[in-house]
Amino acid sequence: MTRFALTIEYDGRPYMGWQRQAHGPSVQQAIEEAIHRFTAETVQVFSAGRTDAGVHAIAMRAHVDIEKPLTPFKLTEALNAQLRPAPVAVIACEIVPDDWHARFACIGRSYEYRIVNRRAPLTWDKGLSWQVARPLDSDAMHAAAQQLIGLHDFTTFRSAHCQSQSPVKTLDKLTVSRHGDELIIEAAARSFLHHQVRSMVGCLALVGYGKWSARDLKAALDVADRNALGLNAPPDGLYFVSATYP
Amino acid sequence: MTRFALTIEYDGRPYMGWQRQAHGPSVQQAIEEAIHRFTAETVQVFSAGRTDAGVHAIAMRAHVDIEKPLTPFKLTEALNAQLRPAPVAVIACEIVPDDWHARFACIGRSYEYRIVNRRAPLTWDKGLSWQVARPLDSDAMHAAAQQLIGLHDFTTFRSAHCQSQSPVKTLDKLTVSRHGDELIIEAAARSFLHHQVRSMVGCLALVGYGKWSARDLKAALDVADRNALGLNAPPDGLYFVSATYP
Repeated sequence: MTRFALTIEYDGRPYMGWQRQAHGPSVQQAIEEAIHRFTAETVQVFSAGRTDAGVHAIAMRAHVDIEKPLTPFKLTEALNAQLRPAPVAVIACEIVPDDWHARFACIGRSYEYRIVNRRAPLTWDKGLSWQVARPLDSDAMHAAAQQLIGLHDFTTFRSAHCQSQSPVKTLDKLTVSRHGDELIIEAAARSFLHHQVRSMVGCLALVGYGKWSARDLKAALDVADRNALGLNAPPDGLYFVSATYP
Repeated sequence: MTRFALTIEYDGRPYMGWQRQAHGPSVQQAIEEAIHRFTAETVQVFSAGRTDAGVHAIAMRAHVDIEKPLTPFKLTEALNAQLRPAPVAVIACEIVPDDWHARFACIGRSYEYRIVNRRAPLTWDKGLSWQVARPLDSDAMHAAAQQLIGLHDFTTFRSAHCQSQSPVKTLDKLTVSRHGDELIIEAAARSFLHHQVRSMVGCLALVGYGKWSARDLKAALDVADRNALGLNAPPDGLYFVSATYP
């Protein structure tokens, strides 16, 4: 048995999310079935994060145990060949110790959220960005975002379905930058609550078009109540960017 | 009658190209039919360039004459509403003089070609970039490309279907730059021959993976013979970027 660490890029549009679901296709299922097709092994793939339906990954990290003797190169080539035409690709692969775990060993996760700030509808990036028609003040969004940095009870920004034991998390980074029509929001933490990034982005958008002040955002955080959430951004613009290991 | 200049973004994947075709959908037809739906007018839209099947536009310029009284804002909103769910969007609109012509007044056109240089298949950018598995030397490509700058007979890089009166064109810019896995090739000229950008990119890729030297590229240009073409790059990575007017 060899344990392989995989780095995976995927387009979340056709999937119910990373995790296997009874009611629809998942990225995990696509990968596990692709591995079965060339190893005849029934494997389970463990990932650093479980992205929601419609959320993408630039470099999800995961691990899998395989009996069949394979080099990382051969595994990558066979897996990518078997995944076609699914929009899921293994972009890196290495052998790791048998006790290395993509989820439990992960000490940092980062996400990126993409907004296209214009009235015109999206074309090739439909489902890959959030189109916001009202003008967004990215400087105001960035300034307000800094209040969320650090150790907080993030209950306001947490889905009712969140399985995390505690709503208290430490947010390490939340930046907003504008590049022409596009706004990029970068978030980093050891771990995130379910919907946390989308909920923070949604509220930052309210700040961006002047409906909320920076003080309103802080008040929403402080009250620690899901009812104080202003807006949950759609999954379209969210990308899992990286997982960090010691 | 008012003449409007439109700036149009589109995803070329579902289309046979810009120009109306008997055998399949085109961007021109999508726009003309959308205008008909809210004006009841049968119009013809003229563009700065006629992109091929599968080629995209970041900012195609075009013009159209409309009888119905409309502001540029109302035209844009109505057109974008009627275009849905087609991946075509009007991103700017202005009133121009009745003798302004998107094609004949255009004195400069620029294109961008995107290559993803990696073994792994593409995911969300499938059909939006050209995936090249073999490592490409972007510096060698850029250096070789400079030989194509200036006034030349570009017959080697011209499709058999080209309708241009002369194969002699002046190429103003052809640059190759690498950004991680991605190569961006930028081309600018007053006008291009049919398939010229894709043919130049294809041959530059041969230089990039060492099959051709810079001298081979120059020899292919000098012989002015379509049979000397090394490779025609696919439409996937090609974007019409801008049209310039006096």
